[in-house]
Amino acid sequence: MKKLEDYIRTIPDFPEPGIMFRDITTVFQDADGLKLAIDSMQEMVADLDYDVIVGAESRGFIYGAALAYNLHKPLILVRKKGKLPWKTIGVDYDLEYGKATLEMHVDAIQPGQKALIVDDLLATGGTAKAIAQLVEQLGGEVVGMLFMIELAGLKGREFLKDYRIDSALIFEGK
Amino acid sequence: MKKLEDYIRTIPDFPEPGIMFRDITTVFQDADGLKLAIDSMQEMVADLDYDVIVGAESRGFIYGAALAYNLHKPLILVRKKGKLPWKTIGVDYDLEYGKATLEMHVDAIQPGQKALIVDDLLATGGTAKAIAQLVEQLGGEVVGMLFMIELAGLKGREFLKDYRIDSALIFEGK
Repeated sequence: MKKLEDYIRTIPDFPEPGIMFRDITTVFQDADGLKLAIDSMQEMVADLDYDVIVGAESRGFIYGAALAYNLHKPLILVRKKGKLPWKTIGVDYDLEYGKATLEMHVDAIQPGQKALIVDDLLATGGTAKAIAQLVEQLGGEVVGMLFMIELAGLKGREFLKDYRIDSALIFEGK
Repeated sequence: MKKLEDYIRTIPDFPEPGIMFRDITTVFQDADGLKLAIDSMQEMVADLDYDVIVGAESRGFIYGAALAYNLHKPLILVRKKGKLPWKTIGVDYDLEYGKATLEMHVDAIQPGQKALIVDDLLATGGTAKAIAQLVEQLGGEVVGMLFMIELAGLKGREFLKDYRIDSALIFEGK
C-alpha cells in the first residue's frame, strides 16, 4: 500500500539551489493521496478537544476545509493583508526576505474558544506563530498545530515549543 | 431553518464605493454554514460525470478540497504565477486593473479527463475562463463550472456560455 510520502514529489533546487521542495500537488491530484493526507492528519488530533479550525491562505484552506467539513467544526479563514472585507486584526511576520501581514476578522474567534491551526508545512514556524497570535489576540486558545509536512532541520518545533505540534510527515532536512 | 444566503455577510462599498461585497468568512466560521455550502454545491452537480475537480488559489481550494474528499476525486490545484514548483503551463487573464497569470502543472490533467471547475464567485467569468483554458491546453474537457455565489449583473454566465454553470446562490446585482 502506498504511504503518504510516496505521493509527494520532491523537486531539487526550487525555489533556489540547495532547497528540496516538497510538492504536494501530486498528493492531491490522486484521490487516494488526498484521502490519505486528510485521514492521517485527522487521526493525529483525534484525542484533542477544540472548537474551531484555523487555516491560512492558501494551502491551509485545503486541509482546513476538508477537516472542518468532516468534523463539523467552524473553519476560520486567515488571509493576507487587504483581502478580508470586514474589521480585521493583523500580525506582521518575517519571511526569508522582508515581511508580510496576516489578518483575521475580529469576530472570527470568540473569547475562550479552543483553536486547532492547520497548515501545509512546518518550516521555521513563523507563519504558524503569526496565526497563533491572531487567535490569542481575540481571546482564543491555541490547543494544537497540525501540519502535513515538517522540515525538521529548520527547527520550527523548537520555535513553537509552547504549542502542541503534530505533523503527518517529517523530513530530516530543510 | 437558515438558508445559505443567511450565512453571508454583505459589506457595502468594499473594496470600492458602489460594490456590495459578499463576505463568505461568516459562512465558513459556522459549522452549519460550511456544511450547507458544501452540500448545496455537491447536490447541484450530482448528475454530472467527471474525473477531476479543479480549484484555483485561494478560495477555490476550500470548495475543491471538501468536495474532492467527499466524492473521492482528485483535486487539481491552480495557482498564481511562480507558486508551482514543477513544469507548468500558464494563462494570462484580465483583472479589473491589469493582468494576472494562473498556472497548472503539466501533469495535472490527463488527455480526455473530464473536469469540474469549482470556485467561490462567478463575477465577470474571467478567472473561470482562464482555468478552463488550462484544462483544455492539457487535453482535458471542462464539463461544468460550480460556484457558491453568482453576481448575475456582471453577466459571467453569458461570457461562459460554452460551459455548464451551476451556482448555489445568485445575487441580482454586481
